[in-house]
Amino acid sequence: MIDIPGITSLIEQQRQEFPGLSNKVYFNFGGQGTLPRSALEAIIDAHEFLQQKGPFSGRVNNWLQQKAALLRQELAQELGVSSETISLTENVTEGCNIVLWGIDWQEGDRILMTDCEHPGIIAIVKEIARRFGVEIAICPILETLNQGNPTAVIEEHLTPKTRLVILSHLLWNTGQVLPLEEIVKVCHNFPNSDRPIAILVDAAQSAGSLPLDLAALDVDFYAFTGHKWFCGPVGVGGLYIRPESFDSLNPTFIGWRGIEIDEKGQPIAWKNDGRKFEVASSAYPQYEGLRAALAVHQDWGTVEQRYQQICQLSDYLWQGLSQIEGIKCLKNSPPEAGLVSFEVTRNLSHKKLVKELEEKGFLLRTLYHPDCIRACIHYFTLPAEIEQLVEAIDLIVK
Amino acid sequence: MIDIPGITSLIEQQRQEFPGLSNKVYFNFGGQGTLPRSALEAIIDAHEFLQQKGPFSGRVNNWLQQKAALLRQELAQELGVSSETISLTENVTEGCNIVLWGIDWQEGDRILMTDCEHPGIIAIVKEIARRFGVEIAICPILETLNQGNPTAVIEEHLTPKTRLVILSHLLWNTGQVLPLEEIVKVCHNFPNSDRPIAILVDAAQSAGSLPLDLAALDVDFYAFTGHKWFCGPVGVGGLYIRPESFDSLNPTFIGWRGIEIDEKGQPIAWKNDGRKFEVASSAYPQYEGLRAALAVHQDWGTVEQRYQQICQLSDYLWQGLSQIEGIKCLKNSPPEAGLVSFEVTRNLSHKKLVKELEEKGFLLRTLYHPDCIRACIHYFTLPAEIEQLVEAIDLIVK
Repeated sequence: MIDIPGITSLIEQQRQEFPGLSNKVYFNFGGQGTLPRSALEAIIDAHEFLQQKGPFSGRVNNWLQQKAALLRQELAQELGVSSETISLTENVTEGCNIVLWGIDWQEGDRILMTDCEHPGIIAIVKEIARRFGVEIAICPILETLNQGNPTAVIEEHLTPKTRLVILSHLLWNTGQVLPLEEIVKVCHNFPNSDRPIAILVDAAQSAGSLPLDLAALDVDFYAFTGHKWFCGPVGVGGLYIRPESFDSLNPTFIGWRGIEIDEKGQPIAWKNDGRKFEVASSAYPQYEGLRAALAVHQDWGTVEQRYQQICQLSDYLWQGLSQIEGIKCLKNSPPEAGLVSFEVTRNLSHKKLVKELEEKGFLLRTLYHPDCIRACIHYFTLPAEIEQLVEAIDLIVK
Repeated sequence: MIDIPGITSLIEQQRQEFPGLSNKVYFNFGGQGTLPRSALEAIIDAHEFLQQKGPFSGRVNNWLQQKAALLRQELAQELGVSSETISLTENVTEGCNIVLWGIDWQEGDRILMTDCEHPGIIAIVKEIARRFGVEIAICPILETLNQGNPTAVIEEHLTPKTRLVILSHLLWNTGQVLPLEEIVKVCHNFPNSDRPIAILVDAAQSAGSLPLDLAALDVDFYAFTGHKWFCGPVGVGGLYIRPESFDSLNPTFIGWRGIEIDEKGQPIAWKNDGRKFEVASSAYPQYEGLRAALAVHQDWGTVEQRYQQICQLSDYLWQGLSQIEGIKCLKNSPPEAGLVSFEVTRNLSHKKLVKELEEKGFLLRTLYHPDCIRACIHYFTLPAEIEQLVEAIDLIVK
């Protein structure tokens, strides 16, 4: 048993908050986090409030605006930024779309992205390239997992035509944490640039798992979601836009939430904060669910404490997996966050192993590229769950 | 009391399903419908199912796809179309954005829209015009409320450069129903067109209140929401795309839901049905809520029966309001659907009247253009509620 003195009983208590943890051994936080009981209660309360006082009324409309403002504020605190830099979105992908379609592309502009990005993001970039004559460059970051320098790889691939660099802060496939501060510096200081190079971060895995101080990082765009590591309900996310980059971005998908109107109802200006990129009616009750989920984590400990706990537990899983004959972890050193990816070196497909594990109550997922299995550890994962998983995999692989 | 033999007791029974109706007199269905009890239960059940079986697992992923397919199918039935023509969206505005950004605009192309469209839609069109050098023409439909021919007005404003006509089926401000079938014919058969003219309908007010047979209408794009007349939860809507117009539209906001990937996770094609325009994770539990809401209406009666009931009750309100000194209905003949708009002809602002009514438990809203107040009638509105509203307005205006 891993030795984390005094902390296991606190975790046992925290786990009572998560009904999704009670009947299985869950390792898919990078797909979707388990919703706290209080978050579901907050969602139900919000639905009931809407029916009680509206659903459409002056009072409810004020309430919704206040609650949305609170959510922007609390998400901003999680990222270390101020609340007017946050736009509420439906998911990470919407945030990336807002940025990618908001830049005034010129023919010949270049997008540099890593070879570890999500298919959905690749598909946006391909359509941007087709419509505007933008060029796509892919840089090999995957091979820097155990050796080499990802910053240097990105730097080598910058050209005077590069306008945007797209990367994930915490790679969804291998679990590598990219040195974002260094990469941002290299991009912003690239001397041969025709125009400033902006950085768009897919923060699907990093927001809610890594301690963040985005204001200090100078990153331009950081698209995240509430339903993975923050354990909020599915359908709410956000986009951080650095104040210096705010005016460079035009809204694309547009609606009443992003505009100012005159007394005739005519749109006359964009809202001058993150709401500029918000569109129209959303599943507002989920906003309250996400706020409740954030509170659950904060009550337990600081983001730094949670991150340390994640790393300690990930290390434990990584060590356990490394000792199984027939399993090879992709990383040859302990994980830097909650994602532990591994492959089976024997004659057993990853799909089959994940399916067998799901039948035994262990939830993990396969990835396409590299072909592997991913287990996610949250701060409230139990050492005993890790031991059970290692044992179950060992048994099946044997 | 209005004479609708035998029907009032059935309505009383149906109203028990809607907690939002119990403590007020509600006339804001065009803003947001009241959520049935069973819809909230379906939302809660879905959240609990996710935690029970996932939230991220092979089983849950299959379940979500099945439920999304069922929702597309049931919405398609409501519109009289087949389910592969439906894309699920977050709201009406997203549907309009999908269409407006999906057309391959050429400089000089022309968008014709009515003078009764929503500010959010106007704002999209203005940004499209700015980015692509597209021209905007506005045609005066407002003045056809009581006289004249809206089809003729639209026809007069078509030019060889017109590529898209934007209109609302049921105008959100005056409650006028536009003769969509006639308008579509005129646009599709316009002889001097450089390219076919497509029609985008903002169906915020019509879907769920008018009987619809879109397949027979030949309309190209019909963007609607579940949270107004269908009384579903906020945050779920849809877009119908006519099969003949499917290929003409490119996806803009893009994500994993709309693409096919190869075994390396690379996007290789769009999905070949309405999912092509869907993006990423949504508030899926709300999908179940909308399905439950649709079932509540279907259990009560056919859409034709509901529409007849709406018209009968609207007529009753229109007559009642018409008799108040100091109130003038915008329409000088009975309403064609559930929206009844009126103005105060005395020295009392519309905002003030709506605020006073809200304090007395009557929920209505003001509109900007024309400056007026709107009361919405659903099929389960009670004649007694209409009488109370008329009395309350009469008292205040006096």
